Amino acid sequence: MPAYAAPTKDIQFLLHEVLKVSEAPVPGYAELDPETTGAILDEAGKLAADVLAPLNPVGDREGCRLENGVVYTPTGFQAAFAAMKEGGWNGLDLPEEFGGQGLPYLMGSAVGEIFVSANMAFNMYQGLTHGAIGAILAHGTPQQKATYLPKMVSLDWTGTMNLTEPHCGTDLGLLRTKAEPQPDGSYKITGQKIFISAGEHDLAENIVHLVLAKAPGGGEGTRGISLFIVPKFLVNDDGSLGARNAVSAGKLEEKMGIHGNATCVMNYDGATGYLLGELHKGMRAMFTMMNEARIGVGLQGYAVAEAAYQSSLSYAKDRLQGRAVTGAANPSGAADPLIVHPDIRRALMDQKSFVEGARALTLWGAALIDRTHRSKDAEAEAMISLLTPVIKGFQTDMGFQSAVQAQQIFGGHGYIEEQGMSQFVRDARIAMIYEGANGIQALDLVGRKLALNGGKAMMAFFEMVKGFIKDNAEDETLAKDFLEPLKQASKDLQAAAMFFMQNGMKSPDAALAGSTDFLHLFGHTCLGLMWAQIAKAALAARAAGGADPAFLEAKLATGRYYMARQLPATGLHLARITSGAGPVMALAAEAF
Amino acid sequence: MPAYAAPTKDIQFLLHEVLKVSEAPVPGYAELDPETTGAILDEAGKLAADVLAPLNPVGDREGCRLENGVVYTPTGFQAAFAAMKEGGWNGLDLPEEFGGQGLPYLMGSAVGEIFVSANMAFNMYQGLTHGAIGAILAHGTPQQKATYLPKMVSLDWTGTMNLTEPHCGTDLGLLRTKAEPQPDGSYKITGQKIFISAGEHDLAENIVHLVLAKAPGGGEGTRGISLFIVPKFLVNDDGSLGARNAVSAGKLEEKMGIHGNATCVMNYDGATGYLLGELHKGMRAMFTMMNEARIGVGLQGYAVAEAAYQSSLSYAKDRLQGRAVTGAANPSGAADPLIVHPDIRRALMDQKSFVEGARALTLWGAALIDRTHRSKDAEAEAMISLLTPVIKGFQTDMGFQSAVQAQQIFGGHGYIEEQGMSQFVRDARIAMIYEGANGIQALDLVGRKLALNGGKAMMAFFEMVKGFIKDNAEDETLAKDFLEPLKQASKDLQAAAMFFMQNGMKSPDAALAGSTDFLHLFGHTCLGLMWAQIAKAALAARAAGGADPAFLEAKLATGRYYMARQLPATGLHLARITSGAGPVMALAAEAF
Repeated sequence: MPAYAAPTKDIQFLLHEVLKVSEAPVPGYAELDPETTGAILDEAGKLAADVLAPLNPVGDREGCRLENGVVYTPTGFQAAFAAMKEGGWNGLDLPEEFGGQGLPYLMGSAVGEIFVSANMAFNMYQGLTHGAIGAILAHGTPQQKATYLPKMVSLDWTGTMNLTEPHCGTDLGLLRTKAEPQPDGSYKITGQKIFISAGEHDLAENIVHLVLAKAPGGGEGTRGISLFIVPKFLVNDDGSLGARNAVSAGKLEEKMGIHGNATCVMNYDGATGYLLGELHKGMRAMFTMMNEARIGVGLQGYAVAEAAYQSSLSYAKDRLQGRAVTGAANPSGAADPLIVHPDIRRALMDQKSFVEGARALTLWGAALIDRTHRSKDAEAEAMISLLTPVIKGFQTDMGFQSAVQAQQIFGGHGYIEEQGMSQFVRDARIAMIYEGANGIQALDLVGRKLALNGGKAMMAFFEMVKGFIKDNAEDETLAKDFLEPLKQASKDLQAAAMFFMQNGMKSPDAALAGSTDFLHLFGHTCLGLMWAQIAKAALAARAAGGADPAFLEAKLATGRYYMARQLPATGLHLARITSGAGPVMALAAEAF
Repeated sequence: MPAYAAPTKDIQFLLHEVLKVSEAPVPGYAELDPETTGAILDEAGKLAADVLAPLNPVGDREGCRLENGVVYTPTGFQAAFAAMKEGGWNGLDLPEEFGGQGLPYLMGSAVGEIFVSANMAFNMYQGLTHGAIGAILAHGTPQQKATYLPKMVSLDWTGTMNLTEPHCGTDLGLLRTKAEPQPDGSYKITGQKIFISAGEHDLAENIVHLVLAKAPGGGEGTRGISLFIVPKFLVNDDGSLGARNAVSAGKLEEKMGIHGNATCVMNYDGATGYLLGELHKGMRAMFTMMNEARIGVGLQGYAVAEAAYQSSLSYAKDRLQGRAVTGAANPSGAADPLIVHPDIRRALMDQKSFVEGARALTLWGAALIDRTHRSKDAEAEAMISLLTPVIKGFQTDMGFQSAVQAQQIFGGHGYIEEQGMSQFVRDARIAMIYEGANGIQALDLVGRKLALNGGKAMMAFFEMVKGFIKDNAEDETLAKDFLEPLKQASKDLQAAAMFFMQNGMKSPDAALAGSTDFLHLFGHTCLGLMWAQIAKAALAARAAGGADPAFLEAKLATGRYYMARQLPATGLHLARITSGAGPVMALAAEAF
């Protein structure tokens, strides 16, 4: 079974040397000194290594089971959930007035990575709750907040999101679940929802379902949709649990991965629901929740890849097979370790340079969310809105590929379930699909975000890259290895955006045929920018006589790898984009 | 459950319009007229669709089980195996003197694709037998051939290949299984082998294991290795089965996929074995078998992708979700089918253009094998030797990606096991690993095949591309859409080969750090050549008033897609290769 150790040193470096959080003018950031964040990360790392990671293969092997309407989670999940509650981890970045610790979202993300790496399926019970809390915080009445939030923040109760129905996933306009108004102001909710993560389980006293449904008078399509709170147990006025609501898990899905999480078919048979937010404005309320959920999924992309990388690195150092082509590296042994072979080294560097770059991008994104909420910074809000589909789509595509590379290093052993590498690949696969499949992320990016407010956010990104290059042009090391490739990538990105502007009006297909390529082109450019910033910070720390020179050299070498070997992908994506819709749409649907 | 229909029209087109088999001067090819090959493919297609494909999810769900040393295959496998035997399919391309039908290897490949698409795990029982037959044909004594081959050709007995041990996979020099010579000329084989596909099962009366082991006096490393025949039941002089040999399955592995195939730990406890081929020349004998096995695995790469593609195409046509950006395509329905969306179309074209191109490359490779064996054509032998790692490595990497794309089209439904898409992905994954992990294929290509005989085969490939471009330069349609991109790809491939020549002598790491990229660069160029040849054939057929104009137009559109959207990948691979070993090897092993 693969061991896991939290990458606290790297997270600390990003927080304090790259993002320089405690100097940033964001309310709550001043308290984030290295000692504080280090202590939090260390504690999270202990829980992850000692409790969560050992349960990861157990959850995969056992899965959940449904018996007489009750869902049982795998052995050990209850105890681990109790430990998670006791540590107050769910409330880390939630408001103090509801029992949270009020730390920035940034710290929630930093800690979230550690928990996801250790046990993605387990962490979803908490992750979904966190998302539901966000929606109630944003749209709930004072009474709804008082009723639900303290119990959810403490994890006594958990939450879910109910969107998908058998005949509609992405296209929510087709949904059929009905909400009938009752004289007391509540609604009767009737319909079937599928793919509901953590829909039913034995970890909490109550489950608070947030359900999209159609109430009368809202019109056709998505306009008629409202969002409802449907608790598993109704809540009495004194906060105690009342009657069981008419909502139940009809089935558990057998999935490719994340077996430890219960993915349920949920049946609503006239269940009592309470409107959350405005009537017929459910989609807007849902999107509040979804944007941060998407960043959370983007985080899963690299967090699972990090865990897989750690395992593959350890295997590459231990497993003796073949001899280095440049002469025996381990002459007293029967063979050299795998890590001596250039193609193995390439596979390790691909993983390492992706994971560390994605971590930087995600933490930057989390800081933008803090600036949006804590500083009411409209530019930060526009930027994170633009970056959200990139963080979600690019990082989960690459994270899956990265896990596949980790598995490949194990050869035949990687294909055997016992080794745990198959689980990483199977778990990572879902992140490309849920919270909007990656094709939908690409569509959101190209069809909506790119041109939003006259393309202001996209322009701001280009200005930011340009400014960084200009400000650091004098540094010869940065200029050659980092700024030149970044400039080229940014040029490719601009050319692609220009192509869409010139052709998208005449033929929307011309833009959409290149949407996935644009998502990846943008993702690579973001990681190029991250690596340039990391390199700058590493050079500065080195010049200042930083405490850990080997760490700083490794940062520079890993960044150079990304710039030399990964960033040139922008040229390929641009070539595909500018080939236009022609090759993609030439074959009529019936000619396939 | 996904339906499967054999792509007989495409295979017929490749055999008769592209390869023009019945005109080719290869013994046995003249009989391969369209009626004959069509009848064979139709029969294979029926068996695949009616018997094998329905068993595919059954095998995945049930897997095999080991009880008291007996391995039970999934429900229905025995009946299907009986049907396979009765049809004489295993002997299709095997010598008539041992009960086969003596058809070319090319037909074995064409039919093999169909069986693998329908049920990869099931087909492995036959596939491994086929490989073992090849080794006995090439290295067996007349008596060994008479004893084993008729029963194996008829599938009364099956075969296995036993290479891997717990501590050694790729590096066979480390193997520990011992062969002690006995007075009667036989050997006692003792040791443990792992990952033995079809090592034990209930489909055949006897299992003929081919086992690599060390006999005394052979020296260190791979030089001391010999190959042995170790039957599960010893064979009496009259051909009847004798005593049970001391070989048994100690364990079944739990794997990510191919659950229907029994992957065994095999224990040899002084089992009786017979030397196959020369003493201490076991590696050579094994490679005979392995080269064709590798092409068979390359075939699996696109065959599973074909099955996954068919499912995703059918889903994209049926599933209603969203509206076409250019206006409703299905105005009377609640939504348009997925296939109207450009990004879905892209994912379908990626799959289609890969699968059809890989099919052409594999059948060309199979024809080269026929020319090697039937015409003793040394140039064909050199070419297929060069192409083998490309067919294996590139096609299985791309085939896996292609299956992942197919799964993605299903959204959340693709992640549910019931839909069958997860199985395609999990099954396809093994092809990147076994028969030499793809990193080993890249090493074989760059470290051995590229420079073999002074690079003669590589030069012949370049000449072939150049000749094709020159011969067809007058055709304007071909020139613009196909020859120009092919020329660029070939130029990139030459530049990469040149980089290795110039840098590989000084620093072998510089070549090996680019080995996987070279494999993919070469693979794309091969598929570019295939599409150019296919386009030429389609244009010729169209000019001649071919019977199925829609099919020919689809071929041209699909080829154009590959040239415009996939072939530019050669530039990215070249950029990575020419960045050299520096970025890859900069970080010392202990600095990771």
